[in-house]
Amino acid sequence: MESLRDCASRQLLDRIGDSWSALIVMNLRGGPLRFTELSRKMLGVTPKMMTQTLRNLERDGLVTRTVHAVVPPRVDYELTPLGRSLEGVVDAITTWADTHIADVLTARDAYDSKLSTAKNPS
Amino acid sequence: MESLRDCASRQLLDRIGDSWSALIVMNLRGGPLRFTELSRKMLGVTPKMMTQTLRNLERDGLVTRTVHAVVPPRVDYELTPLGRSLEGVVDAITTWADTHIADVLTARDAYDSKLSTAKNPS
Repeated sequence: MESLRDCASRQLLDRIGDSWSALIVMNLRGGPLRFTELSRKMLGVTPKMMTQTLRNLERDGLVTRTVHAVVPPRVDYELTPLGRSLEGVVDAITTWADTHIADVLTARDAYDSKLSTAKNPS
Repeated sequence: MESLRDCASRQLLDRIGDSWSALIVMNLRGGPLRFTELSRKMLGVTPKMMTQTLRNLERDGLVTRTVHAVVPPRVDYELTPLGRSLEGVVDAITTWADTHIADVLTARDAYDSKLSTAKNPS
C-alpha cells in the first residue's frame, strides 16, 4: 500500500517534471510577467495549457497571480519564495537535458530501427 | 514556431520529470533488478505502467533490458552510464519534493478553501 505522503510526493514530482511548469519557472526567474509576455516566451504552448499550468502552479503555492485594477486590466504572474526555491532543480534538469539530448535521440533511433528490423526481417 | 530541438528538450523534460521514471532510476541505482524485484519497490504502480515506463527508458538509452537464457527466464533491468548521469538530477528533485511537500500541501488547502468560499459565499 502506498502511503498518502508517497502519493503526494509523486504528484509533486509530476508537477516539477511537467515541462510547461519547468519552462514557466525558468521564464519567471527574471521577475513578474504578464500573461501575454509569458506566452510569447513559451513557444508551442496553447493558451488553454498555459492557463491550466499557471493555475496548478498557483494552487501549489509556487506562483502568485496579481490582478491590477487598471484599464485595460493587467494580470501579473510572479514566483513565490517557494517557487524560487525550485530554480536550482529546474536548472539541473534543463542542463542535463541540454547536455544529453543528442545521446537520447541517438538511442531512440537505434531502438526504433531495431524494432522495425524485428518486425520486418528481410 | 518551436524548433525541433526545443520540442525534443521538452519531451526529455517530461521523461525525467515523470514520477515513475524518476522512481525507477532511484531504485536501480543500487544495481540491476528483475522486473518483480523492481515492482516490489515501486508501490502503487500497475504492471502495465511499469512495462511502458521501462520501455520508454530503454528507448531513451537510460536503462538496458537483459534476457537471461535460464529456466525460468530471467529479465534484468539496469541503468546505462547515461541513466547513471541522471542520478544527481533525480536526487535534486526528490530532495526538493521531500523538503517542500508540507508547504505545497498547505498552499493547496488554502487555494481550495478560497475557491470554495468564492463559489459558496455565506
